Amino acid sequence: MSINTDKAAILKLLESVRKAHQAKDAEAIVSHYDRNAVIFDLSPPLLSPLGTDARAVQGWLDTWDGPVDQASRDIEITVSGDTAFCHGFIELSGVPKMAGREIRLWMRATFCFARQGDGWKIVHEHSSVPFYMDGSFRAALDLKP
Amino acid sequence: MSINTDKAAILKLLESVRKAHQAKDAEAIVSHYDRNAVIFDLSPPLLSPLGTDARAVQGWLDTWDGPVDQASRDIEITVSGDTAFCHGFIELSGVPKMAGREIRLWMRATFCFARQGDGWKIVHEHSSVPFYMDGSFRAALDLKP
Repeated sequence: MSINTDKAAILKLLESVRKAHQAKDAEAIVSHYDRNAVIFDLSPPLLSPLGTDARAVQGWLDTWDGPVDQASRDIEITVSGDTAFCHGFIELSGVPKMAGREIRLWMRATFCFARQGDGWKIVHEHSSVPFYMDGSFRAALDLKP
Repeated sequence: MSINTDKAAILKLLESVRKAHQAKDAEAIVSHYDRNAVIFDLSPPLLSPLGTDARAVQGWLDTWDGPVDQASRDIEITVSGDTAFCHGFIELSGVPKMAGREIRLWMRATFCFARQGDGWKIVHEHSSVPFYMDGSFRAALDLKP
């Protein structure tokens, strides 16, 4: 397989993850992750306990009214043999039930992949926003790439 | 070169970056980065403008009284050909001049590497803390791995 084929497969995987969020289908989301994926998520703790637990992911999806969207840009993919990584920006949007109104924020995202018997899987994910070092220590939710 | 040799070289690189922070030697820090490295840092903007600009990095180092330390744990490295990535936790500590007292926080760190003519270089770095989704949107600076 050529590198371009691999990059196309990885872009397709990311698009599937996005569509599964829109459909709020936790089983579809976790199907793209390695069972032992190490996930650094937007919210505490440092290491996400949701990860590849479909019930936990479904519980999180159910805290949103309607679809959760993840529009990406500037995704750059590097492939080497059976390993790949990519980075870019993702605009997370949706209506958290607790807030009752739409939130919309840009985060940074890094994914690392391994080629397995049934295709590429996410083995590591790191999603974050920076924080203001002006003494407020607020998460920077108002930035645009 | 074996994968273990590569992993040892990458651990040595990370230790050199740590020592360069302790010594506040910006030139030594940026020598380990690819010129076009994509850096997602703790503070805004989404994409770090400091990156591989030694003068900018020195400016940042000079905002600290005394050494800046970065003690790491749980670093897991994956190598594939001329590409590698790793993730783990880093305890950042030091005395920011603005604060006048020690800060100490655990962050998540992901590094991606490329093997170049003169050895491994960092081509992507993602450092972050999560934030509390309790309505406060505070950066979670009090977590431990």
